[in-house]
Amino acid sequence: MPAAAKSAFDRPKSWSEVAPRLVDVATGRKPADLVVRNGRWVNVHSGEVVPGTDVAIVEGRFAYCGPDASHAIGEGTKVVDAGGRYLVPGLCDAHMHVESGMVTVTEFCRAVIPHGTTSMFIDPHEIANVLGLEGVRLMHDEALAMPINVGVQMPSCVPSAPGLENAGAQLTAADVAEAMTWENIVGLGEVMNFPGVANNDPVMVAEIAETVKAGKTVGGHYASRDLGLAFHGYVAGGPEDDHEGTAVEDAVARVRQGMKAMLRLGSAWYDVASQIKAVTELGLDPRNFILCTDDSHSGTLVHDGHMDRVVRHAIAQGLNPVTAIQMATINTAQHFRLERELGSIAPGRLADFLIVSNLPELTIDEVYGRGVRLARNGRLEADIPAYDYPASAKDTVKLGKALTAADFDIAAPAGANEVRARVIGVIENQAPTRALEAELAVEDGLVAMDRQNDVCQIALVERHRGTGGVVNGFVSGFGYVKDCAMASTVAHDSHHMIVVGTNKADMAQAANRLGEVGGGVVLISEGKELALVEMPIAGLMSAERAEIVAEKAAKLTAAMRDMGCSLNNAYMQHSLLALVVIPELRISDVGIVDVTKFETVDLFL
Amino acid sequence: MPAAAKSAFDRPKSWSEVAPRLVDVATGRKPADLVVRNGRWVNVHSGEVVPGTDVAIVEGRFAYCGPDASHAIGEGTKVVDAGGRYLVPGLCDAHMHVESGMVTVTEFCRAVIPHGTTSMFIDPHEIANVLGLEGVRLMHDEALAMPINVGVQMPSCVPSAPGLENAGAQLTAADVAEAMTWENIVGLGEVMNFPGVANNDPVMVAEIAETVKAGKTVGGHYASRDLGLAFHGYVAGGPEDDHEGTAVEDAVARVRQGMKAMLRLGSAWYDVASQIKAVTELGLDPRNFILCTDDSHSGTLVHDGHMDRVVRHAIAQGLNPVTAIQMATINTAQHFRLERELGSIAPGRLADFLIVSNLPELTIDEVYGRGVRLARNGRLEADIPAYDYPASAKDTVKLGKALTAADFDIAAPAGANEVRARVIGVIENQAPTRALEAELAVEDGLVAMDRQNDVCQIALVERHRGTGGVVNGFVSGFGYVKDCAMASTVAHDSHHMIVVGTNKADMAQAANRLGEVGGGVVLISEGKELALVEMPIAGLMSAERAEIVAEKAAKLTAAMRDMGCSLNNAYMQHSLLALVVIPELRISDVGIVDVTKFETVDLFL
Repeated sequence: MPAAAKSAFDRPKSWSEVAPRLVDVATGRKPADLVVRNGRWVNVHSGEVVPGTDVAIVEGRFAYCGPDASHAIGEGTKVVDAGGRYLVPGLCDAHMHVESGMVTVTEFCRAVIPHGTTSMFIDPHEIANVLGLEGVRLMHDEALAMPINVGVQMPSCVPSAPGLENAGAQLTAADVAEAMTWENIVGLGEVMNFPGVANNDPVMVAEIAETVKAGKTVGGHYASRDLGLAFHGYVAGGPEDDHEGTAVEDAVARVRQGMKAMLRLGSAWYDVASQIKAVTELGLDPRNFILCTDDSHSGTLVHDGHMDRVVRHAIAQGLNPVTAIQMATINTAQHFRLERELGSIAPGRLADFLIVSNLPELTIDEVYGRGVRLARNGRLEADIPAYDYPASAKDTVKLGKALTAADFDIAAPAGANEVRARVIGVIENQAPTRALEAELAVEDGLVAMDRQNDVCQIALVERHRGTGGVVNGFVSGFGYVKDCAMASTVAHDSHHMIVVGTNKADMAQAANRLGEVGGGVVLISEGKELALVEMPIAGLMSAERAEIVAEKAAKLTAAMRDMGCSLNNAYMQHSLLALVVIPELRISDVGIVDVTKFETVDLFL
Repeated sequence: MPAAAKSAFDRPKSWSEVAPRLVDVATGRKPADLVVRNGRWVNVHSGEVVPGTDVAIVEGRFAYCGPDASHAIGEGTKVVDAGGRYLVPGLCDAHMHVESGMVTVTEFCRAVIPHGTTSMFIDPHEIANVLGLEGVRLMHDEALAMPINVGVQMPSCVPSAPGLENAGAQLTAADVAEAMTWENIVGLGEVMNFPGVANNDPVMVAEIAETVKAGKTVGGHYASRDLGLAFHGYVAGGPEDDHEGTAVEDAVARVRQGMKAMLRLGSAWYDVASQIKAVTELGLDPRNFILCTDDSHSGTLVHDGHMDRVVRHAIAQGLNPVTAIQMATINTAQHFRLERELGSIAPGRLADFLIVSNLPELTIDEVYGRGVRLARNGRLEADIPAYDYPASAKDTVKLGKALTAADFDIAAPAGANEVRARVIGVIENQAPTRALEAELAVEDGLVAMDRQNDVCQIALVERHRGTGGVVNGFVSGFGYVKDCAMASTVAHDSHHMIVVGTNKADMAQAANRLGEVGGGVVLISEGKELALVEMPIAGLMSAERAEIVAEKAAKLTAAMRDMGCSLNNAYMQHSLLALVVIPELRISDVGIVDVTKFETVDLFL
């Protein structure tokens, strides 16, 4: 394990460590560092808005919140006039993957701080699949260096589907036990192996037990509509939350069982509007509802926002603004046993807050983290230096050889003129795929694509161990009408390389190109590179600004469209095709996988 | 430290330890121990009542809560038909002193289980003043042996007023640190030294820090109406709750500051009706309101109830019944970081629940603890054996000598014919006293009582170290019109012996009598014992049934009335006269104390 990097920001001292200073400021014996006057206190404890409130801050924590902090103003105290604007606790994202933004923790923070995010609970599941515990530790240490609170959930399911894939690493219950001792670990990341929990899989049982023993939060992920016994078994196993619900009855079921319903609005997840009706229409107690994003692309962060977008959306569904803010502040903090640390504007808590000029629209004028102004009018003011990832984290695309078009040849069974092949069918706007079948011609002993009917090739290129392994198959739904190939080292969850193409030479070129740049996404057409997003860190993340990454990603999307692909979230659909935990048909480094049966199947029927 | 006593009840195993069995029962692979069918699920997570609910229980925990548990019924499963009655989580008392009931933890539990209490958070502050850390440990270990959950708060302020009294023991921050490692300690007991917190008293700072370090809850006690800077200083110091509020603005202030407002209905505390208006009239979020009793006399437990009485009272104030139940279940559990253990009917939690036939009236038909029926129709069914306190705990009334009437002589200043003396003035229905003055005659060099004007004598008899020390003074307000004396070894908080009498020979006899029986309360008149409640355990608790103690206490009250005392809670008034932390005038083993100035004063002016 590398040592924790030196931070540009002081780690906040604990409340009890600085309590005497807080008390001195609260009682007027010593001056505050910062006093904000005349705010409307959005009080997430009482559920009120309290006008005419001053707050006094010292040691990065609130010392006094009340009607008049003039006693805390001394020489050297910075005084800010809120002018009747709202003081809102900094927003918390209860569950998310930084890697989905294709940027580092640092760049993610730079992008979201101006949107009012001051706490994020991240599950570095993707890097864990590439670099294992070391990868988790790297992001954990990077998180520690941030001027906002980035708590880390220890990934629970690496690989996601043991036996059906070989990821770059695997994590064990012993790894979980070790991680629980790290400063910044808040719990276990989404326990995705929900059949494993309901079947007492010993690894799942042990990981959950280690987390509970450490007094931390067990994250859930119950990606099924079955609310019968399998669901009840999952709940009895111990996961404490779930963000995979989509319908109002999902939210109701989770909350009744004592889980937290995490409602998700990500770049491609729209699960708030339906489920929030449990509160707005059915009248459930809102305390067990929490907002999160799960996955945000750089473009979303740059153009639409982050948790501010989610809170605005929740308010637009008819939720009381203070209730919506509770779901993105104190409810989240409480879930992670951090309600004495963050999630509210109250004495002792970290002074993470927003100055907001319009509450229902959540117009964020200023963002403070630990008492320091970090952003103003949507512009970052904090200087957050880049975090230096070690060389080992940037050398993860190991192809073992230069690929050629022949690596993508699919040999037909001896003597066949035509074959009936399994085809992975992409479904617009959904993560599941369809298990399609197609009659394909055989030419010179090789199975041909059927571009007329939108059947092209997909390949899973092994990239963790340099075995040179390539698994080939067919995919339908991208709509490519030109000669082209797209490759990505973001290939959930094992993160090998997925190449989809209508032309095998382009496929080889695309794969090799990612080998050169250390990973990312590339689109090649007729030997020409149309778009490239380099992601040298674990083949998952760029070290560039989110704006730049978003621009490159936009260029990629446009190029895919030029090639004929009209899918929404086309790149995401591409990157999910190896996700062998979601039905029906997928590809992995061990073959074509029938996820309805959790077994590999032949390409040909 | 004595070793933990062997319990008649198995300590519950942790959720994660038994998770595989819970999962097996939830999914129908194995049978439950107990299934309760067709209940109305009072769901404190969602805030709903869900009809048609079955629960399946194994290992003392809920495994399944849902519409149909028939899959969990096997050979050997006990099946109970709730017949449409309500399933309510067992009630929790968030802050209380067992000693106030004058009985042991065991007898307290026997008394309150039929009233639906299945969790109590007790602060053994009284025994700590007599026996120190050993006393806390004794009650801690007794608590562990109960069939309900008795969490212990480590007393924080022993002695209550260092310098103004010598208690039987003192506790330090190191003691707090040690106690935090004990199995059953849930936090720090009410931090009563509120000026100390606001002034950074190093002992208070250290005790709070030790508690926070252990991840446990810091109990508060802010017994002041001042909501100004002293209050803000107290909050900044770290206490997390307070039960000393009396008015609605107290509750509002505490909740806004991120504290839990504990609303108290004890034998002599009536603080719910006023403060609950913060929810019922001002609309504050109820999640941060918690119900408790603080102090319940045996008579209250036997005749009026315990937490059921508090919940009924809260409902009678207009609170929604489910909200009231939340305030006595999940809110409490959450406050002590135990919401995954208790406080709701949900998978994984201890199967502590009530079958209730009328919700608004909270008619409790059956009480279950850890899946075992403990009481039915108000009658205890569980066999809870007496807990064996060691001899050292029963030998705490050390007078050092046989007292005589002469020990209560108050010598006048040389040559005086009359003196002006300070007199402790009892105020009906209030804990504070008045600092009165009286002109008293001198006879044979001794100051005489003025029975005409209800001025009689009070004495503080040292009983912890056998020094033979007696501090004499005057008191007014009891209204004794006959020759009599009452003595009590319950003498908050130092628990020496308080003797109040109109006749010195009776005073001596009363004191000596308590020396003989090892403590308690006795009333003597003209040499005759009118009433006696023996409390041999630390001079604070009887080992007898609450019913018997209540009967003896009632006899005592009647006898006090016969002597002319018409005060409500006359015995409590007696026992509080040495409480040198509440103004204005008190008596302690070091003299007469002016609690407005926190200093001893001369008896004569």
